Amino acid sequence: MKVLIDRILQDGRSLEGTILKVDKFINHQMDPFLMKQIAVEFMHRFSDLQVNKIITVEASGIAPSIMLGYLMELPVVYAKKQAPSTMQSAYVTTIHSFTKNNDSDLMISREYLTSDDHVLFIDDFLSYGYAATGIIELCQQAGATIEGMGFIIEKEMLGGRKFLAAKGFTRIESLAIVDSLDNDTIHIKEEE
Amino acid sequence: MKVLIDRILQDGRSLEGTILKVDKFINHQMDPFLMKQIAVEFMHRFSDLQVNKIITVEASGIAPSIMLGYLMELPVVYAKKQAPSTMQSAYVTTIHSFTKNNDSDLMISREYLTSDDHVLFIDDFLSYGYAATGIIELCQQAGATIEGMGFIIEKEMLGGRKFLAAKGFTRIESLAIVDSLDNDTIHIKEEE
Repeated sequence: MKVLIDRILQDGRSLEGTILKVDKFINHQMDPFLMKQIAVEFMHRFSDLQVNKIITVEASGIAPSIMLGYLMELPVVYAKKQAPSTMQSAYVTTIHSFTKNNDSDLMISREYLTSDDHVLFIDDFLSYGYAATGIIELCQQAGATIEGMGFIIEKEMLGGRKFLAAKGFTRIESLAIVDSLDNDTIHIKEEE
Repeated sequence: MKVLIDRILQDGRSLEGTILKVDKFINHQMDPFLMKQIAVEFMHRFSDLQVNKIITVEASGIAPSIMLGYLMELPVVYAKKQAPSTMQSAYVTTIHSFTKNNDSDLMISREYLTSDDHVLFIDDFLSYGYAATGIIELCQQAGATIEGMGFIIEKEMLGGRKFLAAKGFTRIESLAIVDSLDNDTIHIKEEE
């Protein structure tokens, strides 16, 4: 997605290790117009799917997901990391956070994920695939079917796509695929 | 806002204490079309303000804020409760969560909140005003000006509006004002 790739190269920063800082426009300060463009691109790429719900993870997956839900006229459910007092019965799993370097619970209320659901999972980053694995586990607990997974940015060198493929999930769309962050430079794969 | 009030009366539930469960359409499962309508209503109510940024709190404030940011063509910044590795220098305060019954940090990167900012704060609930107070403190640290505060639902009986007024913040718009949750029934004030 050219406009996204250009923006990452302009406003993104490569930090120590494999950290890509995009908090100027995606996951702290957000550019709503770019989020709308991202949602339009997801809509095109997943136009062949029959889904009835979008699932994401708080907090950085919410903005692209609500835009996509609006365009596709689908409800959006975000998995929570902590149970509020209003949550009465939930599917729960544990995931590791890459950027926060800790483990956390991930949960979805049993009211909003069932065996009738065919879901599209949306998130900001595909790194190792930990959050996606958490959503796979929650959907398995509920008997729901994941029809596709969409990520704004994939860090290809961390192997998340291969990790998910080994679990049988191959319908993955990433709008920008970073293949190296060496030497403080960001390298993004050219689009085919 | 009639469509919101009708939806709360239809799909909301009053739980023990002063808990209003709206996780079917606002803060777990989300209805994107309602979120768009909420954003349109906020835009009308705040049309007199000169603001350059929308500030919210993760996670449940993000959906209405990104919709409003899109309509008003403004960037949206969400305050985080935990520091990711990409956050290098931040304003930090501590807030109490009403529905999770715990304290948590609240932070905004110094890069995205400055003394040049005139902000509109958006959140899902006004209860005691704890989250709003956290945002007031972060804006004070940054020297930023809060021009208005908008909430989807206000629980009037918890006194948040009076608490904020005592701090000098009176430009508050709530799209549905609940004045009692007694006896498992939800009572919402009629619009003037």
